[in-house]
Amino acid sequence: MRHDYESISIEDVKAAHRRISPYIHRTPIMTSSTLDAACGCRISFKCENFQRSGAFKIRGAFNALLSLSAEDQARGIVTSSSGNQAAAVSLAAQVLGVSAYIAMPKIALRSKVAAVERYGGNIVWVESEGQVPTSEEYDATAEAIQERTGANLVHPYDDPRTIAGQATCALELVEDRPGLDMVLAPVGGGGLLSGTCLSVAALAPAARVIGCEPEMADDAQLSLRRGEIVPQTDPRTIADGLRTSLGELTFPIIARHAADIVTVSEEAILLAMRHVWETMKIIIEPSAAVPVAAMLEGRIPADAGKVGVIISGGNVDLGSLPDW
Amino acid sequence: MRHDYESISIEDVKAAHRRISPYIHRTPIMTSSTLDAACGCRISFKCENFQRSGAFKIRGAFNALLSLSAEDQARGIVTSSSGNQAAAVSLAAQVLGVSAYIAMPKIALRSKVAAVERYGGNIVWVESEGQVPTSEEYDATAEAIQERTGANLVHPYDDPRTIAGQATCALELVEDRPGLDMVLAPVGGGGLLSGTCLSVAALAPAARVIGCEPEMADDAQLSLRRGEIVPQTDPRTIADGLRTSLGELTFPIIARHAADIVTVSEEAILLAMRHVWETMKIIIEPSAAVPVAAMLEGRIPADAGKVGVIISGGNVDLGSLPDW
Repeated sequence: MRHDYESISIEDVKAAHRRISPYIHRTPIMTSSTLDAACGCRISFKCENFQRSGAFKIRGAFNALLSLSAEDQARGIVTSSSGNQAAAVSLAAQVLGVSAYIAMPKIALRSKVAAVERYGGNIVWVESEGQVPTSEEYDATAEAIQERTGANLVHPYDDPRTIAGQATCALELVEDRPGLDMVLAPVGGGGLLSGTCLSVAALAPAARVIGCEPEMADDAQLSLRRGEIVPQTDPRTIADGLRTSLGELTFPIIARHAADIVTVSEEAILLAMRHVWETMKIIIEPSAAVPVAAMLEGRIPADAGKVGVIISGGNVDLGSLPDW
Repeated sequence: MRHDYESISIEDVKAAHRRISPYIHRTPIMTSSTLDAACGCRISFKCENFQRSGAFKIRGAFNALLSLSAEDQARGIVTSSSGNQAAAVSLAAQVLGVSAYIAMPKIALRSKVAAVERYGGNIVWVESEGQVPTSEEYDATAEAIQERTGANLVHPYDDPRTIAGQATCALELVEDRPGLDMVLAPVGGGGLLSGTCLSVAALAPAARVIGCEPEMADDAQLSLRRGEIVPQTDPRTIADGLRTSLGELTFPIIARHAADIVTVSEEAILLAMRHVWETMKIIIEPSAAVPVAAMLEGRIPADAGKVGVIISGGNVDLGSLPDW
């Protein structure tokens, strides 16, 4: 089931928002004079770390599940994920009384595995050649589950229901903070970034959307430069949510609407994460620190003005924190 | 300069609030369905970890400074503190262009020393017999600075200006959350707890105020039971803000208005801190985790109803985190 990206309209995003609003938090927007001073602009942080399941992924998960007919819901849902998508789909399925099957890599963070188990999701480990499964290996496992159970496959990013759901985050941001000059979001598979592109292009067209990713997983930047999807191989980044490749749906949306993709070092990600923990007193995960790192490292123009930054999640393993 | 505790009225608290409001944040109140379920009540967290300087102490600091005449301000201010008071007075003084002298113990957390230095405070180390200075040793150092510099002595808790300032935190809490059945606050020297008592007794008299302290620094509980101040000696608690003894002003207010003082173990403090970091995605410091620990450990009646919990601060040393 493949869709043309042009099939996702802002009306789909607004419909998704109406559909999921009873089930999600309208997350707060925070500011920090310390970070504003450090970055030379005025930043509005859209705090999806405070979202249910601890990340924006619950938006797409609820939208996908609520888009199913009652008959389809009864057959369950299957997805693949390194972590946050797994927990989000498990929680949304639990809330709606639907069975959830999750294809997870064996290297998933213990805290993310525990979240899936807490929410009653059924974990199936992805068999992979390398340490980190490829997109194909994820998809193969998910498809095998689908064949075995008859559950509905919902792709973690390359699915119109997922993208429309993730787009509701930027929709709320631009509603709550009119007049933004720029919006930053991290990019892994591109579900959040493509959704952000759709909402910003339609509702705040003067704002430039910039994707941010680790240097160690720079496939989105390469893809944008080459004009075709460059698969991510062997991504060795602490940003565990950003190791995947762009998809056939997310890539053309990003290619059309994103002004740029910038990359940051692993050291910058850790420093940015620590900076936010210490100055803002909020827990953000490494993937969420990537856009902050881009600002602190000067990868964003200093005269950026009013900048919206999507803090994608706050799920970290406190038992195995990095060496600061 | 000693004052009768009855000299601090709710009008003084309201005046303090008017005085300091332009300089402080009206901090948000957060909720957590996970913690509500774990504790069996509905909790409103007053998040002073998001306050300027990272703790409630800035309220008393600004109130004390803004209560001084221009002449007195010109002579500077001196206080003593293990950390948050030091940073708060330094920041308030910097904002108002006043010199600040801070008597600090040599065991102060590196991050708290760094905050004082960042805000331009002048540190004077407290000479002490034990590892943790006694109240007398703090006071002696502060008084010596006062004699040398002519700066105005502001006691970190046993001062009507400090108490009225800290009381504004509970004032905001009961304004924003009418109908609370109980309010919990940590207790060290008693500035925050006595202020909380004053505001709650006047503005939400149906609510019971409970002080929470570490078992390893249980002087407030002992003082309340014996009806006289029992000094804290050798407090070996991770809650570095709660190692001090009650004062001549704070004790009688607490004795009159607090319904109880409960204590929690060191293990419970660490577990509560981790629980809040993981589920609420906010950084709270060990002292702030003490009331949460009291709830999680069942030291508070399960039918507590609507509970306000003052999260006193969020200043932790990420470079030397405890072994979870």
